[in-house]
Amino acid sequence: MYYIVVYDVEQKRVSKVCKFLRRYLHWVQNSVFEGELTEGKFMEMKFKLMQIIDPKVDSVVIYTLDFRWRGREIIGVDKNRVDIFV
Amino acid sequence: MYYIVVYDVEQKRVSKVCKFLRRYLHWVQNSVFEGELTEGKFMEMKFKLMQIIDPKVDSVVIYTLDFRWRGREIIGVDKNRVDIFV
Repeated sequence: MYYIVVYDVEQKRVSKVCKFLRRYLHWVQNSVFEGELTEGKFMEMKFKLMQIIDPKVDSVVIYTLDFRWRGREIIGVDKNRVDIFV
Repeated sequence: MYYIVVYDVEQKRVSKVCKFLRRYLHWVQNSVFEGELTEGKFMEMKFKLMQIIDPKVDSVVIYTLDFRWRGREIIGVDKNRVDIFV
């Protein structure tokens, strides 16, 4: 399956969540990751993520897509491209 | 078509972009909107958004889905729910 993960967590946990998600998915931009994962890897990621965030204040939305998105366009800077080449 | 829009823009334009996108889509969480739009409305939104952001520093990623996502789960707080009921 293909996943898009967006998170809105307290400032003190932002870097921890970001570093953690990099182990599973591709960084797209501030607070957004995406990529393909097996069911097992997805469950593992979700389980560990639950330990890292505070579910009373933080929020993580996970979109599961059957296929990749049909289209994906970037208006402005492609931050991921900058991230790779700088 | 169904769209997911995530943005990473300079602090001074965050509120303007957020207010603008509310006119077209549903707010999901910090910097994330989603919803169904006609082709015409989508083009209008994109065109106007280009006038609001600074394409040299800001970034907006737009995912176009044929159908709605297959799954969508929230870990932690459903910020949209809070937004509606508070």
